[in-house]
Amino acid sequence: MRAAVLRDGRLVYRDDVPEPTPGPGQVLVEVTACGICGSDLHFASHGEQVLAATQAMSGSPSSRASVDLGADIFMGHEFSAQVLEAGPGTDTFAPGTPVTSIPILLAAKGIEPIVYSNTTLGGYAEKMLLSAPLLLPIPNGLDPRHAALTEPMAVGLHAVNKSGATPGETALVLGCGPIGMAIIAALRMTGVEDIVAADYSPTRRDLAARMGAHRTLDPAQGSPFDTVAPKVIFEAVGVPGIIDDVLRRAPVGSRLVVAGVCMEADTVHPFYGIAKEISVQFVLAYQPAEFAASLQAIAEGRVDVAPLITGEVGLEGVGSAFAELADPDRHCKILVMP
Amino acid sequence: MRAAVLRDGRLVYRDDVPEPTPGPGQVLVEVTACGICGSDLHFASHGEQVLAATQAMSGSPSSRASVDLGADIFMGHEFSAQVLEAGPGTDTFAPGTPVTSIPILLAAKGIEPIVYSNTTLGGYAEKMLLSAPLLLPIPNGLDPRHAALTEPMAVGLHAVNKSGATPGETALVLGCGPIGMAIIAALRMTGVEDIVAADYSPTRRDLAARMGAHRTLDPAQGSPFDTVAPKVIFEAVGVPGIIDDVLRRAPVGSRLVVAGVCMEADTVHPFYGIAKEISVQFVLAYQPAEFAASLQAIAEGRVDVAPLITGEVGLEGVGSAFAELADPDRHCKILVMP
Repeated sequence: MRAAVLRDGRLVYRDDVPEPTPGPGQVLVEVTACGICGSDLHFASHGEQVLAATQAMSGSPSSRASVDLGADIFMGHEFSAQVLEAGPGTDTFAPGTPVTSIPILLAAKGIEPIVYSNTTLGGYAEKMLLSAPLLLPIPNGLDPRHAALTEPMAVGLHAVNKSGATPGETALVLGCGPIGMAIIAALRMTGVEDIVAADYSPTRRDLAARMGAHRTLDPAQGSPFDTVAPKVIFEAVGVPGIIDDVLRRAPVGSRLVVAGVCMEADTVHPFYGIAKEISVQFVLAYQPAEFAASLQAIAEGRVDVAPLITGEVGLEGVGSAFAELADPDRHCKILVMP
Repeated sequence: MRAAVLRDGRLVYRDDVPEPTPGPGQVLVEVTACGICGSDLHFASHGEQVLAATQAMSGSPSSRASVDLGADIFMGHEFSAQVLEAGPGTDTFAPGTPVTSIPILLAAKGIEPIVYSNTTLGGYAEKMLLSAPLLLPIPNGLDPRHAALTEPMAVGLHAVNKSGATPGETALVLGCGPIGMAIIAALRMTGVEDIVAADYSPTRRDLAARMGAHRTLDPAQGSPFDTVAPKVIFEAVGVPGIIDDVLRRAPVGSRLVVAGVCMEADTVHPFYGIAKEISVQFVLAYQPAEFAASLQAIAEGRVDVAPLITGEVGLEGVGSAFAELADPDRHCKILVMP
């Protein structure tokens, strides 16, 4: 079958990937849409760095560390799909049912994240395996392209939940890529009445306003902190220096949620945080319940993800889509339609 | 009158400081004891750096930034005292009443921290001014030397309150200087049943056990994280590198409270925090209610601060005491007895 795989830092089209066979508890599905995530872009260019950082760390599940960068790598963790066939003795939804799932495969040898793997297929493929107990049917006849955004929107919802943001608090979102957008949407759902979004790109600022930001700011015109005094700050940029800048400029007692994924070493001045008693909550992913809530919100029209989708490609086009996503004025989310 | 003042980076004895006159709402007191704080040592050697860092920062009260390092500086913010005389039209406790206070002076021109000042006296002096509304009488005939530890113990109580530590959680305290000790005492008061303290000094580890640590570890024998998997970690060391080491080694979902005051730029890997969803709460000082609770706990014998006091000097001895405090095996808290 067909798939796009990461090989030597580039996404390569293949038509000779063996079709997977569902084991007990697993379901073979046909992928209908799969979003390209910024972390996929980062892994493609800096896979070695990601694996090294993961290995340097203790206290964390290290299943990702076993990836062989010298062999083809399957990716794609923001997918929607249709049920084809269940594994032996496995009850699941009828063939043809549109579904999605948190990107985890329950396999005989353990839990495998569907993110970067030499063996476990992701959504950049015609077909893949999912876990019957984790499948969520896509309700309300929701467009499968929109359902594919359940995952990134869940990341935003989780970040907002961890922030403890309340409706009366001013929230500042730094960076209006897909995660910043998901945070804006989740803040809006939470009832926050003063959402300020900052991004250098005018296209992204416009999109931020459509997603629910009450005000947008251009950091090129001056620090957002010159204009607003937020109680909660979401860092969705992930470049070195931004955490220190927030510590230096943020108001006393404010809360910083770090949702941007900076893989490099970064310099901070702890004194800034201390003098103002700032709290910093690093966040990653979401709880399964947040994933389900995200799907429900999209299906009920409480979040409109349509404006985020700025492009669609086939499996042959994944490589060029990765290159195009470098330009923030052209794209937000590109969907792969296998 | 007599005082020890900071001049050109050294603590100098003077006997020609003019006696202050209490204004309305103020009270003239005689200092009975004043602890030497690590932040005083740091300010004496790196005052310029402290002021520069304060000025580089926005969003914080910047009253400290107006200190002139070229002129004599009054210090001493961990004091107990006796009431001498109230300012005009000011109701307060009778002369001779033993008192303490949060180190803030309410003056006609505003709120002045009693910490580093060219004009507002601190506890390294025979007499000083305090604010009538902030005075707390020292109860139970408590030794005024012990009452002088109200302030550092309040810092520990505040750190523990901000941590949200609960009795069932394992708490790891990195660094057993006075703030680490205050954190250990506060954890014990909070009912935490597994308090682990780490310090390179055997003297300080012994002291940590006396203050309530259930276990002590020598970091020279291996990372504390090789032995314990804490839910809450208190960083009371304040040197570059320690925050990153905690992010790298701490368990998933753990909470780091940064109570050590690192004035320098520091390097961290945000990825470690992200991958394990660690929260980092920077803390400073305490609420007035925590200060009062700290005094009460000492007066009722729920916290025994006596072991922490390892030396006493007169105002003439403050300079040499600053030098002696560099040796962690000899000293924890030295009191100035004017």
